[in-house]
Amino acid sequence: MQYIKLNTNESPYPPSPGVLKAVQEEAGLLQLYSDPTCKVLSEKLSALYGVSPSQVIMTNGSDEALYFAFMAFADEERPLRFADITYGFYSVFADLLGIPYTAIPLKKDFSIDPTDYYSQDGRGQTVVIANPNAPTGICLSLAQIEDILLHNRGNVVIIDEAYVDFGGESAVSLIDRYENLLVTQTFSKSRSMAGARLGFAIGNEDLISDLHTLRYSTNPYNVNRMTSAAGIAALAENEYYMGNCKKIMETRELVKCRLESMGFFVIPSKTNFLFISHPCIDGSSLYLRLKEKGVLVRHFDEERIRQYNRVTIGTPKQMETFLETTKKIMEGTP
Amino acid sequence: MQYIKLNTNESPYPPSPGVLKAVQEEAGLLQLYSDPTCKVLSEKLSALYGVSPSQVIMTNGSDEALYFAFMAFADEERPLRFADITYGFYSVFADLLGIPYTAIPLKKDFSIDPTDYYSQDGRGQTVVIANPNAPTGICLSLAQIEDILLHNRGNVVIIDEAYVDFGGESAVSLIDRYENLLVTQTFSKSRSMAGARLGFAIGNEDLISDLHTLRYSTNPYNVNRMTSAAGIAALAENEYYMGNCKKIMETRELVKCRLESMGFFVIPSKTNFLFISHPCIDGSSLYLRLKEKGVLVRHFDEERIRQYNRVTIGTPKQMETFLETTKKIMEGTP
Repeated sequence: MQYIKLNTNESPYPPSPGVLKAVQEEAGLLQLYSDPTCKVLSEKLSALYGVSPSQVIMTNGSDEALYFAFMAFADEERPLRFADITYGFYSVFADLLGIPYTAIPLKKDFSIDPTDYYSQDGRGQTVVIANPNAPTGICLSLAQIEDILLHNRGNVVIIDEAYVDFGGESAVSLIDRYENLLVTQTFSKSRSMAGARLGFAIGNEDLISDLHTLRYSTNPYNVNRMTSAAGIAALAENEYYMGNCKKIMETRELVKCRLESMGFFVIPSKTNFLFISHPCIDGSSLYLRLKEKGVLVRHFDEERIRQYNRVTIGTPKQMETFLETTKKIMEGTP
Repeated sequence: MQYIKLNTNESPYPPSPGVLKAVQEEAGLLQLYSDPTCKVLSEKLSALYGVSPSQVIMTNGSDEALYFAFMAFADEERPLRFADITYGFYSVFADLLGIPYTAIPLKKDFSIDPTDYYSQDGRGQTVVIANPNAPTGICLSLAQIEDILLHNRGNVVIIDEAYVDFGGESAVSLIDRYENLLVTQTFSKSRSMAGARLGFAIGNEDLISDLHTLRYSTNPYNVNRMTSAAGIAALAENEYYMGNCKKIMETRELVKCRLESMGFFVIPSKTNFLFISHPCIDGSSLYLRLKEKGVLVRHFDEERIRQYNRVTIGTPKQMETFLETTKKIMEGTP
């Protein structure tokens, strides 16, 4: 069966023509190591984001940025603090690296309460917040992020903005005012490069320098030649990608509306996915029925979110199929 | 100045036509994640090396295989044991991961004494041997490797074969007989893919399974789409690459002969580089003089090898320039 894949938050839109051309050209030079300083890509990216190249590190997906950041900024004295429902790799990395952590329950409506992340009595901790959060899609405002930063003056606060290009507000604008802020982002979703592994972190020079030290001690050629070339080309064609994000956001709102008219509860999303539940069918049943009919969505077998499914926003055509299939399931038609 | 780069052991030969084609095709699918099981590539590679896919893990360069292996198999109870003069990343990884290690001095002729790596009184340790060794180029025989394996029955022995395709004997043939053996290799040198980051480890299923566990906890998409496609294509055109290795070995022997006729001491090499010294010029002077004249070689500022330079074998034409330049330097002509 040819599945419609709405389960891994990939972009339904292919890379831009410049990326194809850049990769093709670079392939002829694969016998040579890539630039371990990632100079050109870092410069282009920092120019686009209005920061200095010394405030940027390019990484092998944003996972690598998070891994380095946990390694550099968290330990027994600075335990991690993140939400109970969030990106699953936070606890995986913490367990692997032997870093203690506290998983803070989201509020009943799945939103984050900033006060839960305040440093208590000035104690050391390292905060990690996915903003927008996954798999909920809910966003904190910049004011709320600032509130958390202000109450963690001596502590690093990592804001994981993997999905920020789909309607969130980036904390990159706060970098120069908060030396404890580290923002991570990825080319995987909004720039159609999940298969290339490219991410980055932006923060003050000292934080970034610490991450570079770890990079040189583990993976100095962490961005390979083809991925670097693809990244540079993607930034040159940024409008194409931001246009795709806009299309995805439009599709998302239409799908949300249609689902709500079918009786679904749909959490307002600032990402390229929707987190949905329905009073008449449980989460895993809907997941399985959709799968039987050729549509893959993501179901998490965790207590608090068992009634939900995470649905990636695909093309309008893919979403039409998803909606029709869902409608049939809900109506009990075969 | 356009340097002739003989300093990083890259192949002077470009990737094969199939690699260019495969990368070009794959670039159009970059919006999708790569296969985290690396199924096709693992199968092709295991077929070529005569092992089962469950005995193979594909990694982001062989550095990642070594990093995972250190993480999995070495700790306070199993300290690392490697040569004082060898690949510099062993001690970097060990320091980063907090693993104690002993650096065993190479013999006076820079060879490895296998008895230095025997487990003493059956004590736990993890042995790492670059074979051929770098930057010396010297190779242990398979019988010597077996000797080390037999004297480390309960301990993992990692044989880093980054340069094995240039005349060494691979220990992959011993995998089924020694469950404590892990062999790592890379596509960077012999398969002209330094810029793509592709390596692998071969060992018994249990060892490989442990490495996969770490991979899934750190970097599940460790081989990106383009690199995977390039790797599959490179294996399909393996004869081209093995032909390049043969050319490099032939060039190496000619260069060795010419250098010896100029009075150089040249260590017999089974790699794509030569490690050379001369009684009339010290190592750093030769390095600097060559650099002034547009030829980059690698000089290490470590006590025991300060008189030496490591010279990567390039094309016959590049090596002719290197030899002529060296001759002028030795003769004192400007």
